[in-house]
Amino acid sequence: MEDSRTRRRRSGGRAGAATRRGSEVIDQMPWNPPVNLDRPTEPLGSEGIEAIHEGAMRILEEIGIEFYNQEALGILREAGCTISGDNVRMGRDFVMEMVRKAPSSFTITPRNLDRQIEVGGKTMLFGNVSSPPNYWDMEIGKKVPGTRRMCQDLLKLTQYFNCIHFAGGYPVEPVDIHASVRHLDVLYDKLTLTDKAMHAYSLGKERVEDVMEMVRIAGGLSHEEFEASPRMYTNINSTSPLKHDHPMIDGCLRLARRGQAIVVTPFTLAGAMAPVTMAGAVAQSLAEALCAIALFQYVRPGIPCVIGTFTSNVDMKSGAPAFGTPEYMRSTQMTGQMARFYGLPMRSSGVCAANVPDGQAIWETSNSLWAAVQSGTNMVYHAAGWLEGGLIASPEKFIMDCEILQQIQRYMQPELTATGPDEIALEAIRSVGNDGHFFGIQHTQDRYTTAFYQPFLSDWKNFEAWEVAGGIWTAERAHRMFKEIVNNFEAPALDEAIREELEDFVARRKAEGGAPTDF
Amino acid sequence: MEDSRTRRRRSGGRAGAATRRGSEVIDQMPWNPPVNLDRPTEPLGSEGIEAIHEGAMRILEEIGIEFYNQEALGILREAGCTISGDNVRMGRDFVMEMVRKAPSSFTITPRNLDRQIEVGGKTMLFGNVSSPPNYWDMEIGKKVPGTRRMCQDLLKLTQYFNCIHFAGGYPVEPVDIHASVRHLDVLYDKLTLTDKAMHAYSLGKERVEDVMEMVRIAGGLSHEEFEASPRMYTNINSTSPLKHDHPMIDGCLRLARRGQAIVVTPFTLAGAMAPVTMAGAVAQSLAEALCAIALFQYVRPGIPCVIGTFTSNVDMKSGAPAFGTPEYMRSTQMTGQMARFYGLPMRSSGVCAANVPDGQAIWETSNSLWAAVQSGTNMVYHAAGWLEGGLIASPEKFIMDCEILQQIQRYMQPELTATGPDEIALEAIRSVGNDGHFFGIQHTQDRYTTAFYQPFLSDWKNFEAWEVAGGIWTAERAHRMFKEIVNNFEAPALDEAIREELEDFVARRKAEGGAPTDF
Repeated sequence: MEDSRTRRRRSGGRAGAATRRGSEVIDQMPWNPPVNLDRPTEPLGSEGIEAIHEGAMRILEEIGIEFYNQEALGILREAGCTISGDNVRMGRDFVMEMVRKAPSSFTITPRNLDRQIEVGGKTMLFGNVSSPPNYWDMEIGKKVPGTRRMCQDLLKLTQYFNCIHFAGGYPVEPVDIHASVRHLDVLYDKLTLTDKAMHAYSLGKERVEDVMEMVRIAGGLSHEEFEASPRMYTNINSTSPLKHDHPMIDGCLRLARRGQAIVVTPFTLAGAMAPVTMAGAVAQSLAEALCAIALFQYVRPGIPCVIGTFTSNVDMKSGAPAFGTPEYMRSTQMTGQMARFYGLPMRSSGVCAANVPDGQAIWETSNSLWAAVQSGTNMVYHAAGWLEGGLIASPEKFIMDCEILQQIQRYMQPELTATGPDEIALEAIRSVGNDGHFFGIQHTQDRYTTAFYQPFLSDWKNFEAWEVAGGIWTAERAHRMFKEIVNNFEAPALDEAIREELEDFVARRKAEGGAPTDF
Repeated sequence: MEDSRTRRRRSGGRAGAATRRGSEVIDQMPWNPPVNLDRPTEPLGSEGIEAIHEGAMRILEEIGIEFYNQEALGILREAGCTISGDNVRMGRDFVMEMVRKAPSSFTITPRNLDRQIEVGGKTMLFGNVSSPPNYWDMEIGKKVPGTRRMCQDLLKLTQYFNCIHFAGGYPVEPVDIHASVRHLDVLYDKLTLTDKAMHAYSLGKERVEDVMEMVRIAGGLSHEEFEASPRMYTNINSTSPLKHDHPMIDGCLRLARRGQAIVVTPFTLAGAMAPVTMAGAVAQSLAEALCAIALFQYVRPGIPCVIGTFTSNVDMKSGAPAFGTPEYMRSTQMTGQMARFYGLPMRSSGVCAANVPDGQAIWETSNSLWAAVQSGTNMVYHAAGWLEGGLIASPEKFIMDCEILQQIQRYMQPELTATGPDEIALEAIRSVGNDGHFFGIQHTQDRYTTAFYQPFLSDWKNFEAWEVAGGIWTAERAHRMFKEIVNNFEAPALDEAIREELEDFVARRKAEGGAPTDF
């Protein structure tokens, strides 16, 4: 174990210094989650913040949220909330008292300790696309249901790219595995093909318990060690408007009681499941998230919780969801202001409505990723690989997105805007004078290998050289890179005894029938 | 004239209200230059601003700039600068005294008074791609030298899109027209196919004088009226490092003396014509721009001047210029801070190194356009249509970029982040409760036509519907739109007497031999 970890640490150094063959397909930046230096973009003044907060609190106090979970209803009744059937109304004092118990920052530690992530503060973390039922790549050329093989390929990309910091949900739903045992096979794949922070779907007791157990085994941890600090997390959506479903709340309660992290992300599409006005959609989203976070804090004070946003709009012509729009950007920024107001880490996403990895896919995704930067987002879900509003996962899109993510990582390096005498470089300018160039001078020679961002997918050749090299458009270049990365992939080191324990666990749970599928 | 202007004004109303047939190809947003609501992204602290300013001033004081223009040398000698051969050194007191004379904001009024633009303050203006020698479209499928026909087509796009606010340089260089008369033919095309603010290349006395005369004629203006306020502008580059060439300075002096606006844009590629460190490249760029602006202010105090930036980096492997990189974004933001420090309006650009309108083209362009937003840029050159580092103009890219520009325009509308009771929409949320949807309610019905950005090129259909419609990628959709716009184009109204006067002027100047080509 120690050896492999040292090797891994070494390979996390300067790009190009990687020691594993598989790492050499491209020359990527090292693992180094960006620290967001930019002052957030804040469209709301203090009055706007107050108005949205007031809206969220009045939703909770006057309208209430339905919790389709008897345990939660019992707990919230005990906590003094007003329960009427499934409807829960809670006062702002209670909500705020509970929310204040949540930490503003925490860590998640996966089996590779070098891949520990800090969620909160100014750190930005990027995760792979999660949960599309379908897959598209340039070789297949059409939208097809996801398979285990496709899921494995996308997990390899998740592991391969240093700019992907956590392995979210299944990068594509492998519908060729029966739903009762799917979580066992995919978690086995995730835990053996990647060593990054991991997620459990809150879809029933058995799945959640199985995943926690597998993460514990993979980390070589005792139960006490597993529970001592977050080793994984779950992400739930509310059922907008104003409902929380049974399995999501159940899963969160199970994780909370074992000290694991929770992300609550309402999916409020303005004009459909939320008001057509963005501030209203944001207020509703906050209400839906805060009441769940209040519940989890009551159950386990101080449990790490992240407030997520998925406030976008629908196309009013067709009802189809739209992503990466101006409205999406502004609602993400507004939610960022509110997350800071509540002192909670924030999650947003990299999203688009495009069906293929073309220009539209990139402007929508760029809009959403820059909105993540502008909003002070901590966890960026779906940061690589998402198409068709989350219905398709694409390896080409995954790789294209990673190029954008690397640029954000580079953009956040403080040396880009350093202004010391070496950077102002008056003597270099003097030495070149009015009639020379900077290529050959010492000031340039000393810095040229590290001075500028070096892309792995952008092609900076001129047209003629690009044409001679085949005249290949971005998506096709990404496709070739995908094949090469997957074909040369080497799984991260894993103790053989641990692998066997995981295999045994999967076999036993399959023999027991896996998880019920009637949820 | 009055009739056509009224008609034009009416067609500038809500999208879809356009009256001209040609306008109906797409449902675009109205003419309405965005007001940048965002606080700029400011990577420099006050020390950083001071360090870059100090660097720029010391370049001017200690190293000096070469002016290959005898007239300028004479003027600057008179002004008290230290002249040694072509080298001019100027003290910071002089520079700052002169720069302070420049207005922080001014207008340019083209022949259509409704297309007057305000340069400065928080207004963002977008211009078409300028000056590529080559053209690419999906039908031709390769890089070819520009022709007058291609130039005309791109001018039609320039006029057609409401999000393009000024007609920069030639959108492609029509090399099928002899260089001696090219300016006459293209200006005739620009002044008849568009009615937006116009540019003259500072490439020798004759070209500059001819363009000023043609703009004056097209506006139906007396010489006095033409000179009373800016009706056009020029843009010059320095010859980095630290040189100003004869024709650029000559052209600017001619425009300054007739009260027209000047944009000074050094092209400082870090690592080649400027230091490899971005702060040094920015300091050099500022020095090159400020000394020219000081000259123009000395000649004509108060003449409108814009400080431009084109600080990017080279690919250190090949020496090729790179665009839309993290370094480009940061240097643009830093220049924005310095432009505000000097009280000057700012120009930056929409740029990419990609050779075709693919994913790379869009992430590089998106980066540069969002950097324009973040930097507080007033004039965004090349905002639509640029490929291959400015060597190729593409109509598909033009239309794709306009979709991004419209989204920026929409992003800046304050109603997106309004937080009044109607936007918080508590009663709407209450009326829908926990078990309904927002599609049909009155609050949605009252707003659904204007609530959200409506794209003209993004395709929000789901995969299956998109496939049935042909499965067309963005660039191909843009190509079809290009053909339709150009085929249905209707030129803006122009008084027949003015058109004849323009034709006569062109014919006369051609008969006189046009402009010399030995500059």
